[in-house]
Amino acid sequence: MIFASDNWAGATSAVMTALANHTSGFATAYGVDPLSRSIERQFNDLFEKEVAVFLVSTGTAANSLALATYAKPGGAIFCHEEAHINVDECHAPEFFTAGNKLIGVAGENGKLTPDALRSAMNKVPDNNPMHGRPAAVSISQVTELGTIYQLDEIQALADVTHSRNVPLHMDGARFANALVSLDVSPAEMTWKSGVDVLSFGGTKNGCWCAEAVVFFKPEDSDGFEYLRKRAAQVFSKARFISAQFEGYLKDDSWLVTARHANEMCTRLANGMRDIDGVRLLLEPEANELFPVLKKEQAERLKAAGAEFYESAADFTAEDEVFIRLVTCFATTPEQVDEFLRHLRG
Amino acid sequence: MIFASDNWAGATSAVMTALANHTSGFATAYGVDPLSRSIERQFNDLFEKEVAVFLVSTGTAANSLALATYAKPGGAIFCHEEAHINVDECHAPEFFTAGNKLIGVAGENGKLTPDALRSAMNKVPDNNPMHGRPAAVSISQVTELGTIYQLDEIQALADVTHSRNVPLHMDGARFANALVSLDVSPAEMTWKSGVDVLSFGGTKNGCWCAEAVVFFKPEDSDGFEYLRKRAAQVFSKARFISAQFEGYLKDDSWLVTARHANEMCTRLANGMRDIDGVRLLLEPEANELFPVLKKEQAERLKAAGAEFYESAADFTAEDEVFIRLVTCFATTPEQVDEFLRHLRG
Amino acid sequence: MIFASDNWAGATSAVMTALANHTSGFATAYGVDPLSRSIERQFNDLFEKEVAVFLVSTGTAANSLALATYAKPGGAIFCHEEAHINVDECHAPEFFTAGNKLIGVAGENGKLTPDALRSAMNKVPDNNPMHGRPAAVSISQVTELGTIYQLDEIQALADVTHSRNVPLHMDGARFANALVSLDVSPAEMTWKSGVDVLSFGGTKNGCWCAEAVVFFKPEDSDGFEYLRKRAAQVFSKARFISAQFEGYLKDDSWLVTARHANEMCTRLANGMRDIDGVRLLLEPEANELFPVLKKEQAERLKAAGAEFYESAADFTAEDEVFIRLVTCFATTPEQVDEFLRHLRG
Amino acid sequence: MIFASDNWAGATSAVMTALANHTSGFATAYGVDPLSRSIERQFNDLFEKEVAVFLVSTGTAANSLALATYAKPGGAIFCHEEAHINVDECHAPEFFTAGNKLIGVAGENGKLTPDALRSAMNKVPDNNPMHGRPAAVSISQVTELGTIYQLDEIQALADVTHSRNVPLHMDGARFANALVSLDVSPAEMTWKSGVDVLSFGGTKNGCWCAEAVVFFKPEDSDGFEYLRKRAAQVFSKARFISAQFEGYLKDDSWLVTARHANEMCTRLANGMRDIDGVRLLLEPEANELFPVLKKEQAERLKAAGAEFYESAADFTAEDEVFIRLVTCFATTPEQVDEFLRHLRG
Repeated sequence: MIFASDNWAGATSAVMTALANHTSGFATAYGVDPLSRSIERQFNDLFEKEVAVFLVSTGTAANSLALATYAKPGGAIFCHEEAHINVDECHAPEFFTAGNKLIGVAGENGKLTPDALRSAMNKVPDNNPMHGRPAAVSISQVTELGTIYQLDEIQALADVTHSRNVPLHMDGARFANALVSLDVSPAEMTWKSGVDVLSFGGTKNGCWCAEAVVFFKPEDSDGFEYLRKRAAQVFSKARFISAQFEGYLKDDSWLVTARHANEMCTRLANGMRDIDGVRLLLEPEANELFPVLKKEQAERLKAAGAEFYESAADFTAEDEVFIRLVTCFATTPEQVDEFLRHLRG
Repeated sequence: MIFASDNWAGATSAVMTALANHTSGFATAYGVDPLSRSIERQFNDLFEKEVAVFLVSTGTAANSLALATYAKPGGAIFCHEEAHINVDECHAPEFFTAGNKLIGVAGENGKLTPDALRSAMNKVPDNNPMHGRPAAVSISQVTELGTIYQLDEIQALADVTHSRNVPLHMDGARFANALVSLDVSPAEMTWKSGVDVLSFGGTKNGCWCAEAVVFFKPEDSDGFEYLRKRAAQVFSKARFISAQFEGYLKDDSWLVTARHANEMCTRLANGMRDIDGVRLLLEPEANELFPVLKKEQAERLKAAGAEFYESAADFTAEDEVFIRLVTCFATTPEQVDEFLRHLRG
Repeated sequence: MIFASDNWAGATSAVMTALANHTSGFATAYGVDPLSRSIERQFNDLFEKEVAVFLVSTGTAANSLALATYAKPGGAIFCHEEAHINVDECHAPEFFTAGNKLIGVAGENGKLTPDALRSAMNKVPDNNPMHGRPAAVSISQVTELGTIYQLDEIQALADVTHSRNVPLHMDGARFANALVSLDVSPAEMTWKSGVDVLSFGGTKNGCWCAEAVVFFKPEDSDGFEYLRKRAAQVFSKARFISAQFEGYLKDDSWLVTARHANEMCTRLANGMRDIDGVRLLLEPEANELFPVLKKEQAERLKAAGAEFYESAADFTAEDEVFIRLVTCFATTPEQVDEFLRHLRG
Repeated sequence: MIFASDNWAGATSAVMTALANHTSGFATAYGVDPLSRSIERQFNDLFEKEVAVFLVSTGTAANSLALATYAKPGGAIFCHEEAHINVDECHAPEFFTAGNKLIGVAGENGKLTPDALRSAMNKVPDNNPMHGRPAAVSISQVTELGTIYQLDEIQALADVTHSRNVPLHMDGARFANALVSLDVSPAEMTWKSGVDVLSFGGTKNGCWCAEAVVFFKPEDSDGFEYLRKRAAQVFSKARFISAQFEGYLKDDSWLVTARHANEMCTRLANGMRDIDGVRLLLEPEANELFPVLKKEQAERLKAAGAEFYESAADFTAEDEVFIRLVTCFATTPEQVDEFLRHLRG
C-alpha cells in the first residue's frame, strides 16, 4: 500500500524491455547515436511540430536547464509559491541560472491566476535595474495539489507572460496524467495554448530516469547543448535514456499507464467519500489525492503498512491530519481496496 | 571494430541482470532505499575503511561535485593540462565551483610530476588574494594518455598537495583498469597513497551510468547531500544507480571486465609491433593505446568499418596520423584480430 | 526640496576634507596602507570588541558579501519581504551566494517578528535536502518603512536565528539614524543583541561611497579577503574609502549628521500633522516618513520642485497617493518649511 | 622613491578639484544625474563614435563585467598567460562569467601573437560541447610586461578573434600610457583596429577609483545595466565617479599625466643603461621597466627606501634579481635621479 509518491515505483516492463534490447552492441557516445536521433524525431510527431528536444535524467535537471536557457542577469522567474521548482529542488533553479530569483505567487488549489501573476510581475517593472527584470514564468501541469490547468487557463497565463516578453515554461513532471485527464493532444496542452518550453516527465509514469526538455521554438535552444553538457547531464551512453523513451512511447504505453494511475486515484477517492471522518479537500483530477483524515485512521493505516506523506496544515482539527496519496502505474486495485479497508477500520 | 571509446559499449549482463531484478516493486525515493544503503556499505568493505559515498550519474558530475566540495572563493584547482576536467567537460568544474580556476600543468605521458606541481602551486602563494589560493589538486588514474601512476608517484603528489593544505582528488573514470594493471588494492591506490576524494567510475567498465564520489575522510562530505541535490544529481528512483553497482561489484565482475579490457589492449599492441609504418609511442598500461599510423593504414581501417579517434600532433610525419584506440569489456579477440588484419593490409 | 532619498545628497565637509588630506603622496595599494589599518582599529573601539572589518564601496556589495560568507549549497536566507536585499538589489545577493534563495517573510511596519520568522524557517527543516537549509537571517535597521527594531526585538530574532545555527545579519544602511534614535551604543545595537555580522553604512549619512562589513566573530571572516577581491571590491587606492571613514567618524561627525537627519524628519512630521488631507501612517523613528497625501497636494509639491517617491498601495483612496520622504545631513529646516508651505497650499 | 605600482599614488589635483566641486548639492542617484550623462557624451567625442559607456570603480570590475557581457555556458576566454585577468584578479572573471574558462596563451614580451592565438582557439573547435566554445579574446594595452601592441598587431589579433565570431576585449588599465606612446587617437587604438569592448582605466593615471566599460557596438551592451547592478557596481552617488572623469578628461589632463609617467620611465631607463650590473630586458614603451639588477644593488635601494616588486625568474644569475619599476603622474625627476644615485652606489 505505497501511496507516498509515484517515484517510489520501479519501471514498466515496456521500459525495461527496451533497455534490455539495447544492452549489448556499440553506439556512438554522447547522444548522437541513431536511437537518440530517432527519439528526437518521435517528439516532433508527438507534438505535431518541429521541436528541439534534449534528454536529461532528472526533473530538477529538466526544470533548471529549461529556465537557465532564458535566465538573465537580474532575472526573476515567477511561479506558484508551492511550485516544485520553488520549494522542492534545493534551489537548483537559482544555482543553474546563476542567481535568478524565483518569485512565488499565491494561488488557490495550487494554481496561478492571471491577475495574481500580472500583479507580481508589475512589481518588477521594465527599465529599473534595482528590481531586476522578468526572465520567465513557470507553471506545473499537474500542479503540486493534484489539480490541472484547463487549456484556456494556460492560454490566459501565457498571455500575461508574453505581455512582458518572457517565455512560459511548463513543469510536466506529471504531463501524461494531465493529458489523459484533459483528453487533449500534447500540442493542445502546450504550444497551442502558449507554452514555450516544457519539462516532459517520464520518470514518475514508468521510466527509470528519463526526462526531456522540449523547446517549441527550436531557435530558443541555441547553445543548449553546452548548457546541458556543463550541467553534467550529457550521458556518454545516452541511448540508455533514449531507450527508456522508446519503451515509454511505444504503443502509447505512457498514456495507458497514466490512465491507470488516474483511475486508481479516482477509485481511492470514490472509496473514501462515504467513510466517516474523511474529508476530501479537492476532487482528484489526476493521480494525487489530498484528504484530511482522523489521526487514528492515519495511525491505523500506517500500522498496516501504508506509506503516504503528512503535512502541516492550518485547516485541520486537533484530531485530524492532512495527507497526500499518489497513485501510479504500479498501483493495483487490490492495494487501493486494502487501503480503504484499513481506513474504514 | 569499435575502438573509439569504452563508453561506446552497452552494459555488462551482470549490470543488466541486477537492473532487471529491481524493476518491479516499490522503494523509498531519493536514495534512502535499502539497496542504496547496502551499496554504500559495500564501498566501506571495498576500501577497508569507513568512507562517505555518493552515487551520481556521470563522470563529469562526480568530478565537478568532488571538486565543488573543496572549492573556495578565489580557489585554484591544479591538474594535468590534458586532464579530462580541464579540456573535456565543457568547463563544468568551473561552473559547479562557482568559478574556481583550473590550472593545467604540463607533464610527460599525461602525468603530473611533483616538481611541476609544486612550481605551479608556488605561483599561487599564501596570503595574496590577487592570485587566489589553492583549493585542490586532481590527478587522473588512468591518465588521458593511458598511463598509470605508481603508488609512490601518487604519494609524492599527495605530499606536495598536502603541504599546501588542500586535498588530492583522483579522477577514476578508469579506476578498475588501473587497479588490475597495478595489481594493488583499492585502499592502496587511494587513501593509503594520500588520495582524499575519488571519482569512482563504473560507466566505462560496464555500467549504464553509474559513478560514485568517495570521500576517505567522511567528515569532508558534510553538506554534500545538498550539493548533489542542487546539482540535479539526486535520482528519485536512486536504486536504479545502486542496482548497477550491485551487478558491477558482484563476484568481482568489475575486475574481470577491466582485466579483459586491458588484455585486449595488450593484444592490440603486441599485434602492432611488427607492422611496418606503425609506431607505438607508449607501452599500454591499461586499456588505451596511442599509436602513430601511416595515413593510408588509417584510411584502410576506416574503410573496413573501424572506429577510432584521430588527433592533431606535432610529432607525426606528413604521411602519418596519431590515433587513440580504446578497448573495453565488450571488445573481443576477434575484433582485435580483424583490426590487425586490416592494418597489415 | 529633495526628499527622494538620502543618497541624492553629496558628501559632508568632514568627509571631503579627509579625502583632500589624502590626495597626494604614495600609499601601499590594496588596503594594507596605514590609514586603512588605523580605520580598522577604530572599528574595534567603536564596537568595544575586536571585530573583523572590511571596507567596500556600495551597500549592495556589503550585504551580498556579508551573506556570501555564510552561504551554502541549498542555503536559504530569511528576511522581510520588503527588505532591500530582497527587492532592490537586482538579485545581487542571489548571485554572490551562487544561488542561495532569499525567502521574504511578511511583517507589519517593515519588521520581522520572531513567530513569522520561526514559522518560515520551519518550512526549511533540517536534514531534508529537497527544501534546502537555512544559511542566514537578515534584518534591516532602519527598516524599509523607516521603523526601528528595539534591542529586545533584535535579541528575540537572534534567538530564533541561532536556534537554527545560522547567523543574524543586520543591513545597517541607515545604522547611524537608528543608533541615535534608540540612543544606545553600537555594541548594544549589534553583538550585544545577538547580531553576528553588520553592513555598516556610511554613504547615506555623508560619505561618497563607503560601507563596511563588520564581523563580530572575527573567525567567521576567514577567507573574506578572497571573497571581496573576487567580487571586484578591493580598491587599489583603498585609502580613498578609508579616508571617508576617517572624516565620517572624526569628532562623532556621523552621529551629528544622523541626529540632524532624524530631526529634520520629525520637523516634517510635526508640520504635517495638522494639514488637512495628510495621513501619517507611521510615526517617524529615524529619517524616513511615509505619509498619504491628496493627489492634488502631491502634484502641487512636484510643481514646486519637490522630489520624492510615490508607491502603489492598496490602502489609499482614489484621490490619494502614498509617498516616501527621506531627510539627510544636507536637508535644511528651510527646505522642510518650504515643503510644508507648498503642501498646505 | 616609490616605483612599486602606479596605483600607490593618490589623485591628481584636476581629479580632486572636480570631486570637490561636486561635494555639495543634490543629484539623482544611481547614475542618471546630469553629470554622469555628460560624461557619457564626452566618451562619444573621445572615440569619434557613439559608444555605450558604463562607469565602474575597479579595473577588475571593468574587465569582469566586460567579459561577462559575452560569456556563454561553456565559454572560453583567451588571453596572454600573464594577463591581469588570468593571474591577478582572484579569478573574478571566472566568477562573474559563471565559470567561463580563461585560457592563457604563451607569447614573448607579454604579447599574444595571431598564430599562438589561432592555435589555442583551434583546440576549442566549433560544435563540440565537450571542449566548450570561444566566448572572447582579451588583450592588455599596455601589456603586463610594459610593452605595447602596434595598431596592425591589434588588427591581426582582431582578425583571428572575429574569424571565430567572438569579440576582442582590450584591458586598458594603462590605456593612456599606451595611447601617448603610440601617438594615435583613441579611435585608432580601439574600434578602428578591431577592438569591440574596452576597459578604459582612469585609476592608475590619476583618478581615485574610476574605470569605464566602453562598448563600440552599443547594441552589445543590452542588459548591461542589470549586469552592473547585480555586480554591486552601481553607485548611489554615481556622480562621484563621473566627477573623477570630468577632472581626468578636462584640458587633456589624462594625456599630460600619461606622457609625464612615460617620460619618467624613459629617464629611469636611460639612467640605468650605463650602470654596471644592470640589464634592461626590454626597452620601455610606456611607464613600466623590467630590469635585472645585482642583488646587492637591490638591497641598497631598499635600504634607501625605494619600493618596487621583485619576481622569480629563470633567466637571472645567482647574484641577480628581476624587478619591476612603475612610474606615474606623481613620480618626479628628483625621485628618479635619487633612485639612480642609490643604484650606482
